[in-house]
Amino acid sequence: MPTFQPVRGMRDLLPEDAETLNYIIGKARETAKRYGYNEVITPIIESYDLLSAKSGEEIRQRMFTFKDLGDRTVALRPEFTASIARLATTALKNEPKPLRTFSVGSVYRYDEPQRGRYREFWQANFELMGAANAEADAEIILLTNTLLKNLGLRNYAFKLGHMGVIRSILNEEGVDEKTQGIVLQLMDKKEYDEAFKLVKPEKCRKILQGLLEQKGETGFETLENMKLHVKGYGKAEAAVDNLFDILMLVTQSDCPVETVEPAFARGLEYYTGIIFEVYIPELDIALGGGGRYDRLIELFGGEQTPATGVAHGLDRIAMAMQMQSVVPKAGDGKRLVVVSVNELMKVEALRIAEKLRDAGLRVEFEVMGRKMSKALEDADKRHVDYAVIVGERELKEGKVVVKNLHKREQKTVDLEKLASELRGVG
Amino acid sequence: MPTFQPVRGMRDLLPEDAETLNYIIGKARETAKRYGYNEVITPIIESYDLLSAKSGEEIRQRMFTFKDLGDRTVALRPEFTASIARLATTALKNEPKPLRTFSVGSVYRYDEPQRGRYREFWQANFELMGAANAEADAEIILLTNTLLKNLGLRNYAFKLGHMGVIRSILNEEGVDEKTQGIVLQLMDKKEYDEAFKLVKPEKCRKILQGLLEQKGETGFETLENMKLHVKGYGKAEAAVDNLFDILMLVTQSDCPVETVEPAFARGLEYYTGIIFEVYIPELDIALGGGGRYDRLIELFGGEQTPATGVAHGLDRIAMAMQMQSVVPKAGDGKRLVVVSVNELMKVEALRIAEKLRDAGLRVEFEVMGRKMSKALEDADKRHVDYAVIVGERELKEGKVVVKNLHKREQKTVDLEKLASELRGVG
Repeated sequence: MPTFQPVRGMRDLLPEDAETLNYIIGKARETAKRYGYNEVITPIIESYDLLSAKSGEEIRQRMFTFKDLGDRTVALRPEFTASIARLATTALKNEPKPLRTFSVGSVYRYDEPQRGRYREFWQANFELMGAANAEADAEIILLTNTLLKNLGLRNYAFKLGHMGVIRSILNEEGVDEKTQGIVLQLMDKKEYDEAFKLVKPEKCRKILQGLLEQKGETGFETLENMKLHVKGYGKAEAAVDNLFDILMLVTQSDCPVETVEPAFARGLEYYTGIIFEVYIPELDIALGGGGRYDRLIELFGGEQTPATGVAHGLDRIAMAMQMQSVVPKAGDGKRLVVVSVNELMKVEALRIAEKLRDAGLRVEFEVMGRKMSKALEDADKRHVDYAVIVGERELKEGKVVVKNLHKREQKTVDLEKLASELRGVG
Repeated sequence: MPTFQPVRGMRDLLPEDAETLNYIIGKARETAKRYGYNEVITPIIESYDLLSAKSGEEIRQRMFTFKDLGDRTVALRPEFTASIARLATTALKNEPKPLRTFSVGSVYRYDEPQRGRYREFWQANFELMGAANAEADAEIILLTNTLLKNLGLRNYAFKLGHMGVIRSILNEEGVDEKTQGIVLQLMDKKEYDEAFKLVKPEKCRKILQGLLEQKGETGFETLENMKLHVKGYGKAEAAVDNLFDILMLVTQSDCPVETVEPAFARGLEYYTGIIFEVYIPELDIALGGGGRYDRLIELFGGEQTPATGVAHGLDRIAMAMQMQSVVPKAGDGKRLVVVSVNELMKVEALRIAEKLRDAGLRVEFEVMGRKMSKALEDADKRHVDYAVIVGERELKEGKVVVKNLHKREQKTVDLEKLASELRGVG
């Protein structure tokens, strides 16, 4: 039989990459604890109706959708927010607000595989529900800053925008919701000409086109120009003010914001307020992104609940860490191998191995039935640090031989002192 | 819109349950490190051909199988071993043996949902490839023992069997492989009458039926009786000897074995040698199980590679821990809330919150725009330990007010000493 390969778009993480991913997950979990976000674990399989309700056409078409054996149309989650919004309308409905949740796991989208893009990829997800204030959005950006900072990343910067600006103008000019969705998705892909073609009347199109040209030396200056540009559209002006408040809160807390982009849009249909993404200069895909979604929970049958959140792309963060050479080296302590000099000593050797493991040491036991010299040769090849050699003569005196495989020195050690000695040695 | 529910058979883990699962995963990962198993992360989606090749009919029928958008027939993994065997024939092909891998994640089977059984459930998985010796099987059992012991579980015991005994007899009597598969699956479900009906000749049937009656005061005695019973079937006798060797190694290392069951079978088709499961008295489903599969890697196009492994059912282990009241209490240190006395102090308060988080403290920031009294009331309700109150007057002197919400005492603290003081207080 020919060998099997992973399904196209899927990949295996070998030990080194798995360790990096787990390291990032650990830091994300630590960030969640520090900011008061409680972890929840939702299923990877959800109903298609839930996942497709407000995901936007683009993601909808790229979901792994199928019927289960009970003829239910289900899909693999393409992101976390729909599942968390579902929780907020059911199991977590009566929790006091604000409700802060953290999730981490794999998500699924049938995109064209390319560097840094797989069909199964990993996200950490933070949601803050029940708070409409700028402080809430600032918190989501600040915790993203903290995570990236604690991972050792440098020179990352946030890009901010506001769906409320664009949506308010489209609403006020009577553009229907479906068209709005298409326009925003095209704008997300920076296909502005295509997007604006769909917008009538002419006045509205000009306002949107004009947004593209609003710039400033700083984010604050851009916002001032934006506000002038949308003058007369009350809700759009309020949206600019909201972005101003958030920008002030995050920049005052030393969080690096690169740009405010007046015409910035994101593909997910559920966004209603600020949206943001974070980048490093070395990589043209976002390490994370999020925004405010004040209507999703209501749409899912819950009470009207303002909410904001962020998803971090863990595979991309891992790639960024590699690019900036900040992946920590595995430092799990020394590795030992326990070998018996002959078949008779096997049981005793295994007992000693178990005792060392109980003491927290990392111990490989010789399970290949190889002769001692062969086993030590192999241990050497795999960069094991110490060999514990269990022989009849020494054991009668309650001792074993410990061999430093780097220095090629050996000494006899009392069994009772073995664990503490091995923990101690460099 | 009515609220959405999880898909039937799926469930959400709310913070407390998620914490328990993460705790178990942490212990499994620690066990892997101590025994020298390196973590790999394989995709949840695999080709149907890979997953179905040797899973056995029962699991095959219950897989979540579907076509992806590229018309590939894929399925969600119902277990880990097929994926790891795939790795052993491809990416890890040239690694020195023994090759030890650890994996953890969710797996999927369309079973009838019931207490302790979901369609998405969690497993930790350890595989040891390249070693045919009894020490290898003993190691897999011993690491399971270590994990359960370190989780605080009591009174668990292993049940051992050996596919080699049954398979050797069936082979020698010329029962074809397909029938063998069906017989073994029926035996796994303890439908012995149904199973034995399929076995011809009569002599073979009698031997199998007789296996059911082999018993002993100890595992070793059972094995002696088994060996007498299968006398003349050379390979079956050798299988009993193998089980004897393994039993000796594990019992000498203080690992509790309850029974050897001569007619014990497991549903997965790939097992060739020892099989085992581990139980606690309070629960009639296994907390984990595994065994030897010496032909799978070869079948997948690799070199002939003896292998053994175990999967731990993490949801069941969580249930067992609840039953034995050994779930540890969350001990993540105290929780703080930072509140500003008024709108003007908001930015300063946020900066202070960020500093405290940088110092490793767990800090919730008031994001609801509530008045201070209301915010403190809410913090009290959610059992927050301390409130840091940021007021204009105190801040001018470089101080804030810290209120102990349990003792209802408050004092003024220097900003510079705030983090160390809060870390120190009980």
